[in-house]
Amino acid sequence: MLERKITHLTVRDVRFPTSLEQHGSDAMHTDPDYSVAYVVLETDSDAALKGYGLTFTVGRGTEIVVCAVKALSTLVVGKTLKEIISDFRGFYRLLSSDGQMRWVGPEKGVIQLATAAILNAVWDLWARVEGKDPAKLISCIDFRYITDALTEQEALDILVKAKKGQKSREEQMLKEGYPAYTTSCAWLGYTDQQLTKLCSEALAQGWNKFKVKVGADLQDDIRRCSLIRKLIGPNNTLMIDANQRWDVNEAITWVTKLAEFHPLWIEEPTCPDDVLGHASISKALAPLGIGVATGEQCHNRVMFKQFLQASALQFVQIDSCRVGSVNENLAIILMAAKFNVPVCPHAGGVGLCELVQHLILFDYVSVSASLNNRMCEYVDHLHEHFKSPTIIRNAHYIPPKDPGYSCEMLEESVQKHQYPQGEVWRAIEQQGKQ
Amino acid sequence: MLERKITHLTVRDVRFPTSLEQHGSDAMHTDPDYSVAYVVLETDSDAALKGYGLTFTVGRGTEIVVCAVKALSTLVVGKTLKEIISDFRGFYRLLSSDGQMRWVGPEKGVIQLATAAILNAVWDLWARVEGKDPAKLISCIDFRYITDALTEQEALDILVKAKKGQKSREEQMLKEGYPAYTTSCAWLGYTDQQLTKLCSEALAQGWNKFKVKVGADLQDDIRRCSLIRKLIGPNNTLMIDANQRWDVNEAITWVTKLAEFHPLWIEEPTCPDDVLGHASISKALAPLGIGVATGEQCHNRVMFKQFLQASALQFVQIDSCRVGSVNENLAIILMAAKFNVPVCPHAGGVGLCELVQHLILFDYVSVSASLNNRMCEYVDHLHEHFKSPTIIRNAHYIPPKDPGYSCEMLEESVQKHQYPQGEVWRAIEQQGKQ
Repeated sequence: MLERKITHLTVRDVRFPTSLEQHGSDAMHTDPDYSVAYVVLETDSDAALKGYGLTFTVGRGTEIVVCAVKALSTLVVGKTLKEIISDFRGFYRLLSSDGQMRWVGPEKGVIQLATAAILNAVWDLWARVEGKDPAKLISCIDFRYITDALTEQEALDILVKAKKGQKSREEQMLKEGYPAYTTSCAWLGYTDQQLTKLCSEALAQGWNKFKVKVGADLQDDIRRCSLIRKLIGPNNTLMIDANQRWDVNEAITWVTKLAEFHPLWIEEPTCPDDVLGHASISKALAPLGIGVATGEQCHNRVMFKQFLQASALQFVQIDSCRVGSVNENLAIILMAAKFNVPVCPHAGGVGLCELVQHLILFDYVSVSASLNNRMCEYVDHLHEHFKSPTIIRNAHYIPPKDPGYSCEMLEESVQKHQYPQGEVWRAIEQQGKQ
Repeated sequence: MLERKITHLTVRDVRFPTSLEQHGSDAMHTDPDYSVAYVVLETDSDAALKGYGLTFTVGRGTEIVVCAVKALSTLVVGKTLKEIISDFRGFYRLLSSDGQMRWVGPEKGVIQLATAAILNAVWDLWARVEGKDPAKLISCIDFRYITDALTEQEALDILVKAKKGQKSREEQMLKEGYPAYTTSCAWLGYTDQQLTKLCSEALAQGWNKFKVKVGADLQDDIRRCSLIRKLIGPNNTLMIDANQRWDVNEAITWVTKLAEFHPLWIEEPTCPDDVLGHASISKALAPLGIGVATGEQCHNRVMFKQFLQASALQFVQIDSCRVGSVNENLAIILMAAKFNVPVCPHAGGVGLCELVQHLILFDYVSVSASLNNRMCEYVDHLHEHFKSPTIIRNAHYIPPKDPGYSCEMLEESVQKHQYPQGEVWRAIEQQGKQ
């Protein structure tokens, strides 16, 4: 199967009108329409072998990512899977460092999101075909720019060391699953009534870790955090998320006023590029027992490297689509292990839970071997559009059993939500005209 | 004129086949085709008032920036210039922080380059209509995320203080011009013969500051630097530029081996995102008298803030197209003044010299009031395609006299070089087919 050639790449702009009901709203993204640039790799295999990948977006701008995927597609089509994985590091660099296209990045923003969509599809294809071992995984990582924090040998040592107990951790995961937290209860646009209802339902379903969006108005935040802390009691976990709303000093002042509700972390307190700012915030909040979490808009391994070097975060929030797919997330997960900082993935959106569950299971089974202070975000939206949706049982992610990277969508869903020609968007347009 | 409405935005993909002759080649961009996403804003003015803007790219990927400009254009078309400049900070944030489009940035990569192209055109339009004062300039800056390094009041104080002597500096600039250095002599792809010829010619024309591309092969670099140092003598200035080729420790080792040629700075030694890496390199090279310069791929004011806070650079290389136009460059220039670090702009490409000369003249006349360790890059390429090309006299930029931001291109040049339908590209395509 490895000899099969990738003959065709299609990419589609798929959007869900989530803004109509304020799902996903936060202090900076007030009206997101959860969307994906959805990639399908076709091969010349008789068995109709295909690879599915996506990158998550929030509406307008998806067409730009689609354009970037098309621009990068010439580097993928015509290659065999064997050519790619026999030098996956080189192939990663081909995509991320094309002598002309790197100018519009490099390794950041639109072009990085497009790289993620394509490589996610390549990993899906590969996962359907064969397994991997530590040396092969290491060979997928581009160590350029991170050797001052993690060498290839150190990375290999971490993987080899974690071989111990791997089998029993695998069994544990298959049985219990990986601990999750929910963000579905407390989007910024929800009323107190909605909060109360959703929180109570979640508690009844076994959830014990809850994230609340904050940052728009301090008095609102105090009221909402107080409400939720009362609902969930003192022993359940509360996290707060400002989605980059504040300047550095403002973040410190604001979060100090929410300390009485004992949040485990403040997420994205300021600009996602501000390593030194996050370091200042971390230092100021440490005495209050509040950590800093960030990563969903951290665009590459070099940024994560610095966050770790500067002790600027206490929770590493990897994302399956923001950086260069599994290749770059492997580097980030291994650096986090070296710096002994827990990985707590960002998920939600469309397909992010489906994708990132693979990474966090890998972290537990093959790298960190620890669940201490670790959990994976979960949002209960839009899973019905996937062929192998995530399975949550008692607030845990149950490992997926179907082969691949779990982001194949139902063709009917894709067609209905294609933007702007799908029936869902044509109906919205017509309502607007009425 | 301020009441006039922007009625239309056009954007075109314009590329020059510079890779055919290795112009612009460096360690990471081996075959650049200098290109622009070229924006024209039309208004409903009787006097055919238009605004011209561009962002620079190096070939493939320009179509992605064009796509992003189109996506952002809905936020511009229909507004009057007055609406924009009466709250330019708000307008800047509208473009850079659109609740959906910011996801594919934020403020970085493709979407930031597109923002620059549009705002460059807005500044061109405004410059054709009226002058500005300090308070108005401050009102253009979005201070979000930088108040821990520079407050609005501090920025205003810097501008007010620099009022002293402004008139005489203006006269000096009109007479002598702003000091420039040349990068045209020593691209990486040039032979030793070419280097020698170009360097000798440049010396004869009065150039006394020279930049050499390095980073592909150490022995080559030693030979080339030695050759050029001999040609220019001990008293002229030499700078070296690695275009992000190295890891942190590799940069220190490599540059140490070039120290005998006394370069003033090493430019882009490693990943442009690596603030802490640049700080380590700066610290290691300081005893050798070599500074670190970077900025042409530094994507926003928050990154520059950190480079300054961490003493990670000794020369701030602003770029007219990488960040959010004049608005964001004002913030960067003012932060550099506060941290007392010289600004030495990146230029070359297509139109970068035409644009950035305005910014560096502003820095001297209205902010830093100093020429110490300051100079502006110059590359002698493609100026003939502009309506008001830069004027260089005795290795100095002579201030432009035509109103506007100097990036209006000749319509004939645009049409000839439009990609892929312009006659230049059709001819290349046909040659390829022969």
